[in-house]
Amino acid sequence: MKLTKLDKKERTVVAVGNVMIGKGLVVIAGPCSVESEKQTMETAWAVKESGADVLRGGAFKPRSSPYAFQGLGKKGLKILKKAGEETGLPIVTEVLDPRDVLLVADYADMIQIGSRNMQNFSLLKEVGKTNQPVLLKRGMNATIEEWLNSAEYILREGNHRVVLCERGMRTYETYTRNTLDLSAVPAVKGLTHLPVIVDPSHATGKAELVSPMSLAAVAAGADGIIVEVHINPEEALSDKEQALNPEQFSGMMHKLRPLYQFMSGLE
Amino acid sequence: MKLTKLDKKERTVVAVGNVMIGKGLVVIAGPCSVESEKQTMETAWAVKESGADVLRGGAFKPRSSPYAFQGLGKKGLKILKKAGEETGLPIVTEVLDPRDVLLVADYADMIQIGSRNMQNFSLLKEVGKTNQPVLLKRGMNATIEEWLNSAEYILREGNHRVVLCERGMRTYETYTRNTLDLSAVPAVKGLTHLPVIVDPSHATGKAELVSPMSLAAVAAGADGIIVEVHINPEEALSDKEQALNPEQFSGMMHKLRPLYQFMSGLE
Amino acid sequence: MKLTKLDKKERTVVAVGNVMIGKGLVVIAGPCSVESEKQTMETAWAVKESGADVLRGGAFKPRSSPYAFQGLGKKGLKILKKAGEETGLPIVTEVLDPRDVLLVADYADMIQIGSRNMQNFSLLKEVGKTNQPVLLKRGMNATIEEWLNSAEYILREGNHRVVLCERGMRTYETYTRNTLDLSAVPAVKGLTHLPVIVDPSHATGKAELVSPMSLAAVAAGADGIIVEVHINPEEALSDKEQALNPEQFSGMMHKLRPLYQFMSGLE
Amino acid sequence: MKLTKLDKKERTVVAVGNVMIGKGLVVIAGPCSVESEKQTMETAWAVKESGADVLRGGAFKPRSSPYAFQGLGKKGLKILKKAGEETGLPIVTEVLDPRDVLLVADYADMIQIGSRNMQNFSLLKEVGKTNQPVLLKRGMNATIEEWLNSAEYILREGNHRVVLCERGMRTYETYTRNTLDLSAVPAVKGLTHLPVIVDPSHATGKAELVSPMSLAAVAAGADGIIVEVHINPEEALSDKEQALNPEQFSGMMHKLRPLYQFMSGLE
Repeated sequence: MKLTKLDKKERTVVAVGNVMIGKGLVVIAGPCSVESEKQTMETAWAVKESGADVLRGGAFKPRSSPYAFQGLGKKGLKILKKAGEETGLPIVTEVLDPRDVLLVADYADMIQIGSRNMQNFSLLKEVGKTNQPVLLKRGMNATIEEWLNSAEYILREGNHRVVLCERGMRTYETYTRNTLDLSAVPAVKGLTHLPVIVDPSHATGKAELVSPMSLAAVAAGADGIIVEVHINPEEALSDKEQALNPEQFSGMMHKLRPLYQFMSGLE
Repeated sequence: MKLTKLDKKERTVVAVGNVMIGKGLVVIAGPCSVESEKQTMETAWAVKESGADVLRGGAFKPRSSPYAFQGLGKKGLKILKKAGEETGLPIVTEVLDPRDVLLVADYADMIQIGSRNMQNFSLLKEVGKTNQPVLLKRGMNATIEEWLNSAEYILREGNHRVVLCERGMRTYETYTRNTLDLSAVPAVKGLTHLPVIVDPSHATGKAELVSPMSLAAVAAGADGIIVEVHINPEEALSDKEQALNPEQFSGMMHKLRPLYQFMSGLE
Repeated sequence: MKLTKLDKKERTVVAVGNVMIGKGLVVIAGPCSVESEKQTMETAWAVKESGADVLRGGAFKPRSSPYAFQGLGKKGLKILKKAGEETGLPIVTEVLDPRDVLLVADYADMIQIGSRNMQNFSLLKEVGKTNQPVLLKRGMNATIEEWLNSAEYILREGNHRVVLCERGMRTYETYTRNTLDLSAVPAVKGLTHLPVIVDPSHATGKAELVSPMSLAAVAAGADGIIVEVHINPEEALSDKEQALNPEQFSGMMHKLRPLYQFMSGLE
Repeated sequence: MKLTKLDKKERTVVAVGNVMIGKGLVVIAGPCSVESEKQTMETAWAVKESGADVLRGGAFKPRSSPYAFQGLGKKGLKILKKAGEETGLPIVTEVLDPRDVLLVADYADMIQIGSRNMQNFSLLKEVGKTNQPVLLKRGMNATIEEWLNSAEYILREGNHRVVLCERGMRTYETYTRNTLDLSAVPAVKGLTHLPVIVDPSHATGKAELVSPMSLAAVAAGADGIIVEVHINPEEALSDKEQALNPEQFSGMMHKLRPLYQFMSGLE
């Protein structure tokens, strides 16, 4: 594994707006998809009130079927930006196409490379040419080595503001949507200087497993989590079974920050 | 999933000697294999001093190759029993053959069904006929549903003293030996009344990942962990890369019990 | 991979009754389970008429749930033996418990070690002590290396009459029951001197895929196939979706033997 | 699975230059990467002489590491085009970036979407807007359902000239590079009207397994194969272990076409 850019000694801290990923616990929350201004705004306020640091939401959605909801596109970006400005939360959103990188960079504080695009090398190079923070999700069938090589693609273009995100592997198990590989957290912390966060929503696909897996992620040493929260999960246009409602999110947050504090004291 | 015996309401506590699994945090530790009286005794005292509750050690070893060390057999059982008596720790050891169940039950306080035998139905029925506590490891390719069905085989024979153990799934990832599925912990806690523990040693195959994964297991709600400790890992006859030495184990224990206390306060 | 017993030069031919596995194409067919004398006898005659060489049928069934049909046991063995005697077909049936090996050897011409027991080392050693032909199925999560090591366990006890059987791997794909790994056929032919057959029924779990996969197996160099045939698949007590009815089996046989002849001419 | 465009009755035949995929056996062969004019030209003539129908070769290479050979790009396209013109073979080559689709369409007779880009929806839509034949490889972790949905993305844009290509799944097995899923061939033939070919080179990663898996693919009903051939595999800049040399390719072709003829007679 030749990882020229990943082997420096001091740990990287990635600033997303005024939020420092890699220093303290960072919680990113929000809806899977931006569905409307009302839904996004209400969710944004709800997660902010419960202590989220960054707002997530999808405007361009990678969907297996061309007949599934594909996201609101540019209109979605505008809604997100407004929600970010009103609540004061930096926003992160996914980009699917190298031609949209500058557009997304214009609206978002952090650009997400999703699981399906972890080896979309054109896209990696394009976000590598910006100086925008990048959230690089692990591919659902990617080895740790491939994931780090994909990070190396971005760093090599000059953009060192990369945050890794473990989001579950595709395995034979069908009870959960994917299999969350928490051992990847201490593994990549040992192999690189980049911050690592965990997405328990996509990994488990089940709302009731999100809180225990978030707590486990923090205990394993993660720098943060990214979770799906929806004002009304039952009406969500995508991923309804894994979204927390605001009360569930708030309940989880009451455990998560104290746990992080406790873990920090243990070192 | 028809799980007649697994759906009662109150949680099961399994007594192993004077240790209660399902009530407080239980730590099972010891060598992969019983190699000699000296090695076993020294390891037993070392793990006891660091606060282990139960001693583990293999006398019958399931090895892929017939030319690999197969364990000391009955001689190993005697060494284990002696180590248990001297240190006061209950012992758990694996059985591979239905014809050895009564023999193992004679020496051990708890019988382990290993990953390769999770669907060895003759063996499950045989341990189900004893009234010995059983540690049922999840098969390395077993779904949660299959794992619970295997537990049901044991309970159906009349033995309700079953503890489940998640020990990692076989996946495409080669960086770790297996992929630890911590989401299985809250999943089976929700689906059954049985205690669940985690084996981070076999799951990760790497000593440096054992401590973070043990902490994560506790945060995910596990009732305990089972870890490999060797007086001198570099000289171990099996699994040398994943065994903790006594100092590493002691260091981990200084974090693990406080974390469990902290988590209990969060509920 | 230390495979002392598997590296001799000339290819092994395993005689099962008067059928030579490893010389010509051998077709093993019959029901998943022996359900009754009538069903077994009718199926036996049907597969014989279409050209099967060996009769298969399960008396001891390894079922995930203790509440599923577990097979007729000794009664099933008797039915099988009778069907074998009347039709003149040698019979192969699975053994699950080392204590049943001599019993099964008494009734069957070939003993099957099923996928779930590929690493049941007690059972491997026990069949290794007989001089009965053994059909060793690959574990559904076993690597080729582990599979060959399991064969080595049997040979090392003195029984060299082992036939390997590829039966599909457990993967993330849910369209088929398992994923048939036909590349294992030329791989193990290159690595060992043992005959190799293929089970397209358990591998695919779909009757309509059995014929194309059987043809593909022959083209890949397999020494035979083992397929599930039921007089009336819709009423089968197990595996109804993958069983061929006698007409489907007959249709397949009209292609399979000519293909084998053709392939032999190509060498 | 909503596959509006894939459910028509008559089978699709895709013309690539004067070659008809879906009618007769089509063999696509050539180097993994276009490395130089000499290497490409010599390989092109060699595969043509042995009876290949279409020339393959990579100009844009998707490599896990940014430090690995990335292909010759436009220069590679020019070399390929020249090789196609001189030998009279149509050419197929991979595109990685939606912005390169028109460029590649200008040089190539067929555009390949590689495994890593099977869910690069921007790229799918872009090739869907051309009227160029498309070779859609199955993702190494894609289900059959996802693969067909990706085809649907292309057809929905108006381009119906899609050929599916099975190229191996990522599994736990490490003996082969991937696990070739030949059951996918009859499965997608049953589910759609599109031609299906097989890539045994990437699937197995071992030259000695390419010929048996090609024969098996034909027996399973594939419309063709795509194989890597290199003038001198040991000096190849990528995938050297899986490339056939011209003699090996020629030897395979002497079996493959007769087998296809034979199989056609069986229907």
